[in-house]
Amino acid sequence: MSSSAGIIIIGDEILSGRTKDTNINWIATELNKIGIKLKEARVIEDEKEIIINTVLEFSNKFTYVFTSGGIGPTHDDITTESIAAAFKVDLEKNKIAMNLLKKHYEKSNIDFNQARQKMAIIPKGSFLIDNPVSVAPGFNIKNVYVFAGVPKIMQSMFHSISSKLEGGIIVKSKTITCDIGEGKIAGDLSQIEKQFLNMKIGSYPYFNPQSFGTSIVIRSEKIEDIDLATEKLIKIIKKYGGQFKILI
Amino acid sequence: MSSSAGIIIIGDEILSGRTKDTNINWIATELNKIGIKLKEARVIEDEKEIIINTVLEFSNKFTYVFTSGGIGPTHDDITTESIAAAFKVDLEKNKIAMNLLKKHYEKSNIDFNQARQKMAIIPKGSFLIDNPVSVAPGFNIKNVYVFAGVPKIMQSMFHSISSKLEGGIIVKSKTITCDIGEGKIAGDLSQIEKQFLNMKIGSYPYFNPQSFGTSIVIRSEKIEDIDLATEKLIKIIKKYGGQFKILI
Repeated sequence: MSSSAGIIIIGDEILSGRTKDTNINWIATELNKIGIKLKEARVIEDEKEIIINTVLEFSNKFTYVFTSGGIGPTHDDITTESIAAAFKVDLEKNKIAMNLLKKHYEKSNIDFNQARQKMAIIPKGSFLIDNPVSVAPGFNIKNVYVFAGVPKIMQSMFHSISSKLEGGIIVKSKTITCDIGEGKIAGDLSQIEKQFLNMKIGSYPYFNPQSFGTSIVIRSEKIEDIDLATEKLIKIIKKYGGQFKILI
Repeated sequence: MSSSAGIIIIGDEILSGRTKDTNINWIATELNKIGIKLKEARVIEDEKEIIINTVLEFSNKFTYVFTSGGIGPTHDDITTESIAAAFKVDLEKNKIAMNLLKKHYEKSNIDFNQARQKMAIIPKGSFLIDNPVSVAPGFNIKNVYVFAGVPKIMQSMFHSISSKLEGGIIVKSKTITCDIGEGKIAGDLSQIEKQFLNMKIGSYPYFNPQSFGTSIVIRSEKIEDIDLATEKLIKIIKKYGGQFKILI
């Protein structure tokens, strides 16, 4: 049984188009490396009810849930209180977080005001997630990992907990690009896929001013199967008189 | 009453991290321009049941639904059949689409084989969506607009239908960046926001090796309110001895 995951991106700034999300792709890539299957990613509004419902749905559906965004000091940062409400636990000023933040702001000679103290308020029973970039921690409650939205901070938080995640069998893949249209080899790809157990062959057309063609991604837990399928594929590409490149 | 929208990105290749989605941000930006509020975006697997359920949920929740991905000629392209199943309508070989594709492939001297003919199969009662890039059309059924996944094609499809979308009041915005930490002005932002009806002030910290600060986005339907709020904000930034820049 492989572990599954869902990502929840919380932020009106993504939905308005102002900010380009890069966290989905970054987390997806990291999960893939450790054999956890990302099943769904959602971008949702900064609305308490929506956050509560989405977190509960994901927490029930997936092994791991990762949220990003909405844990800063300002009034529009409502992720923490929404997650506490979702799991019906109280919020508390976390002593460790308070100490970390107090020291950090004292050292930088910045006023540790009420808004900043908000970042030490965490749902009871949560585990803190280190933030080596800007100190204010994320937290983990049940199977939900709550990260900041700023990519550098989110990435450092993910790395500080990733060794605790239970990965599964790592799905390997090989990408072959060729100068043959997707429509020409569609039938052949389907035929090859059927010859192997748990293999997925995806095909992605590409176009550019000079040329067009197809990128074919063969995915399986067994590298031997991928190699065999690649051989079959190359024969077909050659049959059509095409050129190919094998990428990793 | 403003129109709402949801985006469904269909594709294992996004969830595996192999491909970076750019369609959410692109559509979000276009919708924002015409006053349609994007309420949610989801990335889901190439799985029929999941596509059916998500399309039905979105079709009920939002004024407009946009899907991208999974309408090509290969075996992993199952969006069209899933959407027909969602709305309980039959699939049919669309005559107009067949003619368009036939001509296109004849002209290019490419075999119009069974896989390619699959791209002319459309749920009954749908309206075709032009594809000036690679001919194979998208389609519109009820409030759902089904686009290709390749960004250039998706964009051309969106533009060919966007004049039919009913926009609402356009939410305007102004972005002010300053070299003051988010935590310092958090309380002030909340105070300003409360003084206006239907105003949203978002704040987004930025960090780079040379400096840190906050980008503040003031959003409202009334440009006069935005201007007034900007004045108040600038006073506060100056009070803290900060520097600022007003972006559009």
